[in-house]
Amino acid sequence: MSQIRRMNSAEPGFIAALDALLAFDNSTDVRVDAAVTEVLAAVRARGDAAVIEFTNRFDQLDVADMGALELPKAALQEALDSLTPEQRSALNIAAARVRTYHEKQLLESWSFTEHNGTRLGQKVTPLDRAGLYVPGGKASYPSSVLMNAIPAKVAGVAELIMVTPTPRGERNPLVLAAAAIAGVDRVFTIGGAQAVAALAYGTQTIPQVDKIVGPGNAYVAEAKRRVFGTVGIDMVAGPSEVLVISDGSGNPDWVAMDLFAQAEHDEVAQSILLCTSEAFIDAVAASVARLLPDMPRKEIIAASLDNRGALIKVASLNEACEIANRIAPEHLELAIEDAEPWVERIRHAGAIFVGHSSVESLGDYCAGPNHVLPTMRSARFSSPLGVYDFQKRTSIIHMSVAGAAELAPVAATLAYGEGLQAHAKSAEYRK
Amino acid sequence: MSQIRRMNSAEPGFIAALDALLAFDNSTDVRVDAAVTEVLAAVRARGDAAVIEFTNRFDQLDVADMGALELPKAALQEALDSLTPEQRSALNIAAARVRTYHEKQLLESWSFTEHNGTRLGQKVTPLDRAGLYVPGGKASYPSSVLMNAIPAKVAGVAELIMVTPTPRGERNPLVLAAAAIAGVDRVFTIGGAQAVAALAYGTQTIPQVDKIVGPGNAYVAEAKRRVFGTVGIDMVAGPSEVLVISDGSGNPDWVAMDLFAQAEHDEVAQSILLCTSEAFIDAVAASVARLLPDMPRKEIIAASLDNRGALIKVASLNEACEIANRIAPEHLELAIEDAEPWVERIRHAGAIFVGHSSVESLGDYCAGPNHVLPTMRSARFSSPLGVYDFQKRTSIIHMSVAGAAELAPVAATLAYGEGLQAHAKSAEYRK
Repeated sequence: MSQIRRMNSAEPGFIAALDALLAFDNSTDVRVDAAVTEVLAAVRARGDAAVIEFTNRFDQLDVADMGALELPKAALQEALDSLTPEQRSALNIAAARVRTYHEKQLLESWSFTEHNGTRLGQKVTPLDRAGLYVPGGKASYPSSVLMNAIPAKVAGVAELIMVTPTPRGERNPLVLAAAAIAGVDRVFTIGGAQAVAALAYGTQTIPQVDKIVGPGNAYVAEAKRRVFGTVGIDMVAGPSEVLVISDGSGNPDWVAMDLFAQAEHDEVAQSILLCTSEAFIDAVAASVARLLPDMPRKEIIAASLDNRGALIKVASLNEACEIANRIAPEHLELAIEDAEPWVERIRHAGAIFVGHSSVESLGDYCAGPNHVLPTMRSARFSSPLGVYDFQKRTSIIHMSVAGAAELAPVAATLAYGEGLQAHAKSAEYRK
Repeated sequence: MSQIRRMNSAEPGFIAALDALLAFDNSTDVRVDAAVTEVLAAVRARGDAAVIEFTNRFDQLDVADMGALELPKAALQEALDSLTPEQRSALNIAAARVRTYHEKQLLESWSFTEHNGTRLGQKVTPLDRAGLYVPGGKASYPSSVLMNAIPAKVAGVAELIMVTPTPRGERNPLVLAAAAIAGVDRVFTIGGAQAVAALAYGTQTIPQVDKIVGPGNAYVAEAKRRVFGTVGIDMVAGPSEVLVISDGSGNPDWVAMDLFAQAEHDEVAQSILLCTSEAFIDAVAASVARLLPDMPRKEIIAASLDNRGALIKVASLNEACEIANRIAPEHLELAIEDAEPWVERIRHAGAIFVGHSSVESLGDYCAGPNHVLPTMRSARFSSPLGVYDFQKRTSIIHMSVAGAAELAPVAATLAYGEGLQAHAKSAEYRK
């Protein structure tokens, strides 16, 4: 039985209580820190040999060389062939929709020419090579393979290398099938900080990548944080979050199940409802109590709702939007009868699900937009994973002789002002 | 007298020697690390009081409250009025060109509607508030204020807060004038890790920002690295770099001075020439020897060229482009007679300066593109600072009733496959 907390925005101290509810310590344990330091240094120094040692130790394997840790493409196709027609079809539909949506994100090069012939612009190029981390075990999600791999391939990344651990040799056929559909180029069955290190530094067998994306445990997250700069990384993610804004319309069972869907991820996931109607909040609480016992993951759901969930009465939808902007939630559902006008009031959210039919789980799998979204209030300054994360820009500066002559005195004046005489002279040479 | 090294790509071991030349240890000193830990914790816990204490201690001031550490807008205008007409005009021309260029980078929201009425898209919003760090002392550059502030204002950031230390009360009028021109909203005369902490966490006086940009010393860089996640940051930059590719055409004095312009930044800046002509390399070396004694910053230039510079003979322009892609330089000058066709060969660079008139120092100040560029090979995966760094995207998912019904079974199949039954149920409710 869940004891999800009730709050009211009219109570004194509400904002402080809300901030306390949102607070989450995402810092790294010192033991994780020390272990990651050792693994990164060993893989950097000894390459394949270190990767093999750590993999044998942590994944309880007994392999002698890296060849045994690479899956041939045929293994991916076999996994795809092994699925039920229903599963294969669902993966294919999801992949096609994700691809169509992400194709709209492609950045394009641009330039313009000035009156005197100077041409300025930006040239867009894909990354040469990207690495995709896929966890083994309980958090091994084929949907995550699609969401990370497809944007990279749409961007034009030439080589996409997936790493995924296979503890005691256990493979996840859905994950491998998703890799086949998404067009992953190579798969190594390695994980943990050693996999991140191999991708970041390169080994005799594993080529260095330019960016590493994908979720992972605390060791993987810390390793990614540490190799940032040597390679690019996506975000270091916090617990998953949903915020539902309700005007009291619709079905309370739907809202309860949407809160469950977030809560079932893990005990620190966060599900919050903001609602203008006290009666509807009561109805949602009753739905929670009635529906929870039948959920296979009811222990996780109850722990998550009790730890970090809340049903919050608000004065108005206006106020709800203000609170939403403060929270900057990863997922925001507008469970509102006429939801569309409220979209423009939201400045900060990873994804907005508009109206009663727009449930988060459709977005998690197959609506098309990415399910890798900014957590822990980082939607204030960052974006969903996208094609743009696998493209980068180069400034193009093609000065005409006349253009350079015209701007040389401007640059020289500013350079002398900064005490950089060689900057000034090199500009003046073009006058 | 500089002893810039000569290399030849045909020599055995060239790639290893090149990698050694490029290698740079950008890790943080343990003392810096400890000092930053203390400052961040103190400012987080005690706010204004801690900022005042550290500022008095590190900047040798004696102020009693934060009011004394905020500059009124009138002080910025006064600084602008105090400049020579030539300086004021140069700043205004540079700012106008930077603004015009960056306006082309604005991202726009988009959406599309499917046959059954489902609407999908991305909504683009600016950050609410950004922080701009401007160093005091020798590396205090007004051009840097323009390059960091203007993209933020073009993006639509509502409040831009600049922090800059004034050791012993010394202000830089060019920096303040640039802030006036760029439209900076508030200026605090604080610096170091304490300024970064104040912007990241907020204090009683200084509002929390969403992202912190701008260059700084080792303490500032480490503080930014540590607050990343709480706020966004731009890159943690390494030493500045230029790579010049020459076909032996043009004036060797120009090439020499362009190498000087990079080298004069500091002793670890990197200037490299790749040239197909041995005779031209000899001529550049002679120019270096002849021009260096007259440079006011000749000690820094000589140290930089000797430590990290190189004149490299290559077999062909094709090979030069391959090497450039390996280096992924911050600045790349194509000092080539017919340079334009070679642009498409370059996949990785922060900025490409095309042809003999396109000198880096014009780009540093007033060509229009940003001078904040990826260093240390990070152009493989990242981009110049731009308007897009001050905007972020939110996915929009507005499912129609028919659209949700159509996709619910797809989502449910995948959710059951992942063992997430509440995800499946919440989708099935919409069927």
